[in-house]
Amino acid sequence: MKYAAGLDLGGTNIAGGIVGEDGTIAAGGSIKTHADRGPDHVIRSMGDFVLGMIEESGKEVASIGIGSPGPIDHEKGSICEAPNLHGWGETPVLAKMEEYTGYECVLENDADAACMGEKLFGAGRECDTIVHLTLGTGIGGGLFINGRLFRGGKGSGAELGHMVLNADGYRCGCGRKGCFEAYCSDAGIRTQVKEEIEGYPDSECSRFDISEINFKLIRELARKGDVYAEKVYQRVVRYFGIGIGNLVNIFNPHAVILSGGMIKAGEEFIQGIRDKVFEEAFDSMVGDCRICVSTLGDNAGVLGAAACALMNQ
Amino acid sequence: MKYAAGLDLGGTNIAGGIVGEDGTIAAGGSIKTHADRGPDHVIRSMGDFVLGMIEESGKEVASIGIGSPGPIDHEKGSICEAPNLHGWGETPVLAKMEEYTGYECVLENDADAACMGEKLFGAGRECDTIVHLTLGTGIGGGLFINGRLFRGGKGSGAELGHMVLNADGYRCGCGRKGCFEAYCSDAGIRTQVKEEIEGYPDSECSRFDISEINFKLIRELARKGDVYAEKVYQRVVRYFGIGIGNLVNIFNPHAVILSGGMIKAGEEFIQGIRDKVFEEAFDSMVGDCRICVSTLGDNAGVLGAAACALMNQ
Repeated sequence: MKYAAGLDLGGTNIAGGIVGEDGTIAAGGSIKTHADRGPDHVIRSMGDFVLGMIEESGKEVASIGIGSPGPIDHEKGSICEAPNLHGWGETPVLAKMEEYTGYECVLENDADAACMGEKLFGAGRECDTIVHLTLGTGIGGGLFINGRLFRGGKGSGAELGHMVLNADGYRCGCGRKGCFEAYCSDAGIRTQVKEEIEGYPDSECSRFDISEINFKLIRELARKGDVYAEKVYQRVVRYFGIGIGNLVNIFNPHAVILSGGMIKAGEEFIQGIRDKVFEEAFDSMVGDCRICVSTLGDNAGVLGAAACALMNQ
Repeated sequence: MKYAAGLDLGGTNIAGGIVGEDGTIAAGGSIKTHADRGPDHVIRSMGDFVLGMIEESGKEVASIGIGSPGPIDHEKGSICEAPNLHGWGETPVLAKMEEYTGYECVLENDADAACMGEKLFGAGRECDTIVHLTLGTGIGGGLFINGRLFRGGKGSGAELGHMVLNADGYRCGCGRKGCFEAYCSDAGIRTQVKEEIEGYPDSECSRFDISEINFKLIRELARKGDVYAEKVYQRVVRYFGIGIGNLVNIFNPHAVILSGGMIKAGEEFIQGIRDKVFEEAFDSMVGDCRICVSTLGDNAGVLGAAACALMNQ
């Protein structure tokens, strides 16, 4: 069986694993990123970490996949700009990792890597066209089209969270109004609550600091009968339906796969989204399109990075 | 030089031409469709028409491309449903044309064919990723992605006109609210005017029957200083900016190419759209993306159909 190493580079931690082409993890672990010590330090410690795992696993590894936040410059093999990894743009991460480890490396945006993980190991295994959304503070998008990862024509595309769904809607962090992300992410929900909470002084939401507001809390309060929280929750579901409906009409995909913290809200939430998408998208397109959640769990980042390496072989 | 025949099958007319791989047209013409006489009649007259042109041109033609309205069933080689071509779904148009003419044939949706025409002969020649929009009664979409036509994962996608841009907006013909097409097409403009005109009794628009309202008229009236027409015109430009901005964020394309009746409004209109897209989309994506109009003129349909045949060889 073929094996690859997967590294999920985050601003705080780096998770890693030695992954077989059947998705089994032969060795794994995580280290602190220590991003403040700069890219050269991080690359060396990431290199030592992965070499240790390869040795521990006893497997023959062909290459190393690295999933990183932020847009990737695929020509330079560098990370343009990412939270906690500021100023890495000029560092040829890919070349330095290859030199340090002696292995062929692949560097991919983490949302794209997550999509590849679903394709190879997860809910997208039998699908040729996949729309993948990572739901959390923002919305990350990944596209697998006609049997290939699609990174956008010029390599930094698939900003699916910055599709305007309501031109007169809430202000998004990107400066536009009414983006998908302004409705259906933790950051978006905070903006909505901040703007509206004065009108709902009886809502439990008003007892929390705005930084504590997120989808999980809104859902809990809605379940307890909080009228304003229920209003926000229903709006989130509605706009998921509209946003995913748009993507179904555009891509006519075999599957729309949802990952990230929000999917822990459970099946009722996902079924609510599904019902709305069926209302929204063309019957001919949504009819046999699966709208489902990732099956990869907490290892999704490592599996995605390894998938990029395995599919590159 | 390689040649192919291109047929642009419409509900009223069929245009055709013998097209070289450099885009020159060696012979061409058009006939009436007589759709009321049924698919078998139309296939025979289309066959006679193309065989006549091939003979007239004196060129060796390898295959025939047919561009048709409506979604195509590529497995059956049939036209699912199109205006004036009702009930053609069960007719294997492709097989019957191949049998009747003795040539290999390619059947493609006309919006997809138009995109291929731009790729091979037009404004998209040097582009690997193209978003193509045909602007008229509705909005037709075509996508060329990573060097290939993308018809949607399951073959009937790229309904770019049915991307919701304002969830609380005007009702679209498809049943949703606030689609791109509800703002930026002749049909959409008619709906807007119908809904609003009572509030603007002084507008020249109120002197026209609703069936006479279209973008061209709105633009003319706006130029003459009609306040309501100007309001509609500015809204059309704004929503083009938002809709194309979304597509740029999703696809990060090398070019967005506009075709169809509306582009005759001229450079000022296109520049207005461009300015708005630059405001809307991410700088990194829109920076070197060309937003331009088709250069293929009235032969776009024939050239697109021929391009499908040439690129299929």
